[in-house]
Amino acid sequence: MRGKLFGIGIGPGDPELLTVKAIRLIRETQVIALPDSSGKESVALGITRERLAGKTVVFLAMPMTKDAETLRISHDAAFEQVRAFLEAGSDVAFLTLGDPSIYSTFSPLQQRALAFGYEVETVAGVTSFCAAAARANIALSEREEMLTILPAYRETAFPAENVVLMKVGRHYETVFGMLRDKNRLGCAALIERCGMDGENVRIGLNGEEAPSSYFSTIIVKEKPL
Amino acid sequence: MRGKLFGIGIGPGDPELLTVKAIRLIRETQVIALPDSSGKESVALGITRERLAGKTVVFLAMPMTKDAETLRISHDAAFEQVRAFLEAGSDVAFLTLGDPSIYSTFSPLQQRALAFGYEVETVAGVTSFCAAAARANIALSEREEMLTILPAYRETAFPAENVVLMKVGRHYETVFGMLRDKNRLGCAALIERCGMDGENVRIGLNGEEAPSSYFSTIIVKEKPL
Repeated sequence: MRGKLFGIGIGPGDPELLTVKAIRLIRETQVIALPDSSGKESVALGITRERLAGKTVVFLAMPMTKDAETLRISHDAAFEQVRAFLEAGSDVAFLTLGDPSIYSTFSPLQQRALAFGYEVETVAGVTSFCAAAARANIALSEREEMLTILPAYRETAFPAENVVLMKVGRHYETVFGMLRDKNRLGCAALIERCGMDGENVRIGLNGEEAPSSYFSTIIVKEKPL
Repeated sequence: MRGKLFGIGIGPGDPELLTVKAIRLIRETQVIALPDSSGKESVALGITRERLAGKTVVFLAMPMTKDAETLRISHDAAFEQVRAFLEAGSDVAFLTLGDPSIYSTFSPLQQRALAFGYEVETVAGVTSFCAAAARANIALSEREEMLTILPAYRETAFPAENVVLMKVGRHYETVFGMLRDKNRLGCAALIERCGMDGENVRIGLNGEEAPSSYFSTIIVKEKPL
């Protein structure tokens, strides 16, 4: 009897934004897997630490790189770690920040587990951009509006409507210059470390707010805020 | 001492997708407001009914129409209902399906409350499209990909990348025709009544799956699923 893989969104950082389902499944699952990549591991661990006592906690190396071959090799290796538990009949709960379908380290594990015929249950979580919008008291989309979500480093035709830029961090200067050129600095809000210690919300950008954290989101509306 | 307005996302339908924070704030707040519009009220009520015993529950008429003037008048009236409690010193918790920043009935109340200087705390929730992706075991966006979210009835240049079509319901035939013309029926998944009774997930569309519910989401990927 092979184990089942759970991919559990644990929300953006505030432990109160865990869902009832996430808490139940963490409680019921003996083997907990966490991504281990440049500081993100510690956030996922911080949100759930008090719930992990007595459990088998497995850290999966998931380097953050754009190199496709490096990614493939590390994802294969991470899945093999998980697979050993599944083959031994243990369920595994992989915990991922935010939601497991949005730029998540769960996706490569999910795809591999499905391809090999394992049972996979994915549990949605609160995304960082929804939490950021809530903290800034901004609507992301209303009525017939469109909402576009993309990583800050993505070079693309910038939509005229609602945009969320994820993972701003060190790309802030580029984004700032682009928004200045498009005369949309006043339409933008920066939310840094949403729901975590050191949270910072800025409505309207002026160039002085370069974020210190990878965990930064910029919301850009069509009109000034 | 004026009361505070809470806008609380209660998730897409599964009561287990409530957050710890939503549950705590519902417990702590005496006056609960719910949108009352063509069946949606009953879903929000169904998710939280057991938590509302002994509370003052206020239903706010929020008709679903595209007519701007009808919307403005009904939103003004809904806000006046809420405002009477705030002025009397009572906090009010407005419960909204999914997340309060994404196509939410909370946005018009949030904007009015902020404009009149009331304290507003918005609490993010799990969106229906994240829950739909989880149930279908599909990634909405990975790596540098873009994700576009829009209502099904919106006529627009259809993005080549990841798209979420919300509120498909009676617009299904139009959407189906458009996806067929773009040769993307195999790239699409339909998730109906996600997390509710009668949930139905279809991977790949063939025209036979016209949804019976307003609560339907279509996810369209770049490549076949």
